[in-house]
Amino acid sequence: MTSPWPAAGTPLDQIATPMPVVDEERLAANIHRAQAYFDAHGKAFRPHIKTHKTVGVAEAQRAAGAIGINCQKVSEAEIFADAGFEDILITYNILGAAKMRGLRELHDRVPRLSVVADSEMTVAGLASAFEAARPLTVLVECDTGGKRCGVQTPEAAARLAERITASPTLRFGGILTYPAPGSAAAVEAFLVATMALLAGKGIDCPVRSSGGSPDLYQAHLVPSATEHRAGTYVYNDRSMVRAGHCTRADLAMHILATVVSRPTEDRAVLDAGSKALTSDLLGFSDYGEIAGFEAARIVSLSEEHAVVDISECRDRFPAIGSVVRIVPNHTCVVSNLFDRMVFHRDGIVTRVEDVAARGTVW
Amino acid sequence: MTSPWPAAGTPLDQIATPMPVVDEERLAANIHRAQAYFDAHGKAFRPHIKTHKTVGVAEAQRAAGAIGINCQKVSEAEIFADAGFEDILITYNILGAAKMRGLRELHDRVPRLSVVADSEMTVAGLASAFEAARPLTVLVECDTGGKRCGVQTPEAAARLAERITASPTLRFGGILTYPAPGSAAAVEAFLVATMALLAGKGIDCPVRSSGGSPDLYQAHLVPSATEHRAGTYVYNDRSMVRAGHCTRADLAMHILATVVSRPTEDRAVLDAGSKALTSDLLGFSDYGEIAGFEAARIVSLSEEHAVVDISECRDRFPAIGSVVRIVPNHTCVVSNLFDRMVFHRDGIVTRVEDVAARGTVW
Repeated sequence: MTSPWPAAGTPLDQIATPMPVVDEERLAANIHRAQAYFDAHGKAFRPHIKTHKTVGVAEAQRAAGAIGINCQKVSEAEIFADAGFEDILITYNILGAAKMRGLRELHDRVPRLSVVADSEMTVAGLASAFEAARPLTVLVECDTGGKRCGVQTPEAAARLAERITASPTLRFGGILTYPAPGSAAAVEAFLVATMALLAGKGIDCPVRSSGGSPDLYQAHLVPSATEHRAGTYVYNDRSMVRAGHCTRADLAMHILATVVSRPTEDRAVLDAGSKALTSDLLGFSDYGEIAGFEAARIVSLSEEHAVVDISECRDRFPAIGSVVRIVPNHTCVVSNLFDRMVFHRDGIVTRVEDVAARGTVW
Repeated sequence: MTSPWPAAGTPLDQIATPMPVVDEERLAANIHRAQAYFDAHGKAFRPHIKTHKTVGVAEAQRAAGAIGINCQKVSEAEIFADAGFEDILITYNILGAAKMRGLRELHDRVPRLSVVADSEMTVAGLASAFEAARPLTVLVECDTGGKRCGVQTPEAAARLAERITASPTLRFGGILTYPAPGSAAAVEAFLVATMALLAGKGIDCPVRSSGGSPDLYQAHLVPSATEHRAGTYVYNDRSMVRAGHCTRADLAMHILATVVSRPTEDRAVLDAGSKALTSDLLGFSDYGEIAGFEAARIVSLSEEHAVVDISECRDRFPAIGSVVRIVPNHTCVVSNLFDRMVFHRDGIVTRVEDVAARGTVW
């Protein structure tokens, strides 16, 4: 069986499609620009590995100055613990015997491990699973408008912090939110109110963690936050360009695809479907942008085909057999589909790295 | 590192979530019901492996009487060739040096390999890659209304068939379509017209292949088709119930997920996001159905969270820590996210099998 993965030195126009590829220079620039911003503002930066799930990229983030990493699953954290990462925050309510067993093993070998909780139930589960000799650090997750998980009020946050503080097997680490985009004032107000309540109870709140890539460069508008978490900024995608977070020149990931059919004057078909791009729309009405052919619209995906409306650029659009570059709507879900990631510099493959935390289940 | 994959004999309520699970009895019933239908109507049945990507399931389909299998990628076909499958149809325009090299290797070891083409460009590429001593079988793909790939008219189909017939390194195998749902009359008309044109040119057209799960049990309404291809029928999903193809009692795959938060009276959050369910809507306005709680609506997904509107069933909805069963909108894309699949009988794990063709790239 021939391998689809190219050797270093291979030009991108000779590799199999569909294939996501990451530009080394843009990747490095994205990492350093974000870290420089947080350094300038005196905030800790904790990249979320969900976007790349790749050890080498996380190492570059750490080398640039990241305080640690953010994972969403116990099994992701295991991969990065194996790779020697010593400060891991899992921003998830860990529940259930199977995950708790994994979390305990992780705590035994990660010097600085922390998790979040937003309910008495989660706190009780964590409290009974750990030991006073080596308490687990728990942050209270707050819903500051993102409408996902999180306690709803500063009062509820303070109550849960008290509950954690009262548990000898847990250590209260602080408060955390994944805010709605553009909601800095609401986040700041929630943090300030919670900190005041905690101060009134004599509870220290060392970490105030906010997050998100779209508003990454507005993190200074939440002065009470001590750290920021973000994933997508590292590769960027079409949604980040739309949010004003970056320009097209900062897009590190593209998906190479081949034109496999031109059935009609106005229709082209590419070999990248929902199993390469995913169906994530993120508010767009089409499934990605074709670099250099922004007038073409990827109007539908089946699993291995993209149907492109080329009515606005039919004379210019590439012929059958040509390779195009797709800017994905959402980069994080693309990484999650491929076992390995191809990196390049100026269109020449530099390395192919395992997406080591892809396929981690729990 | 503990393994998330359960041992045989484990009850489903003790396994890690999120996790797709397949009911052995429903799986077997789906396989046998479809095969019995095609046997009764004297048509060949060629299951598409895209849904399960799993050798054991394909073996069960073959054992039930399938004529062969349908793959969408060269790299998928390689996995099933390794597993001893001898009749493989790849319903894709194969273009580019890398894929063509894989296709040639495959042709050397698969007794009955066939592909499709819908353009002179694809036919020319195939013709130059194979040898007259062992010609490759090529079917002409026809667009009968599905508006994806395919020649647009019976005349164009006949012209391309002539071109294939004229190539000493290729063998014309017949015609193929992936039709729009509910379009049996249009498919039959296209097939009949093309067969008449081919007969007029003295070209034999042994295979007329149609496909699709939603209309599987209407395949007899296309009498000129000699074979049918379908994938989703084997597991079924919410879209198949809506199409009238099956009932909820025929749903073989569910995704187990844990309630990880109840932030408000009307909101619950599950540990299954777009990296477990995908964002495929398939025309639905929500991201799956929770078995037994059909009034709950999965209104949004982030990568590892599902946000559920439980306003219509808030008193009944399970507490934090409980496990629920999600019926996915689209089963094929779920299989593609997990490295292994958990099978069970009456809620007890029977086996865990590699999703061997997951992550195949080209």
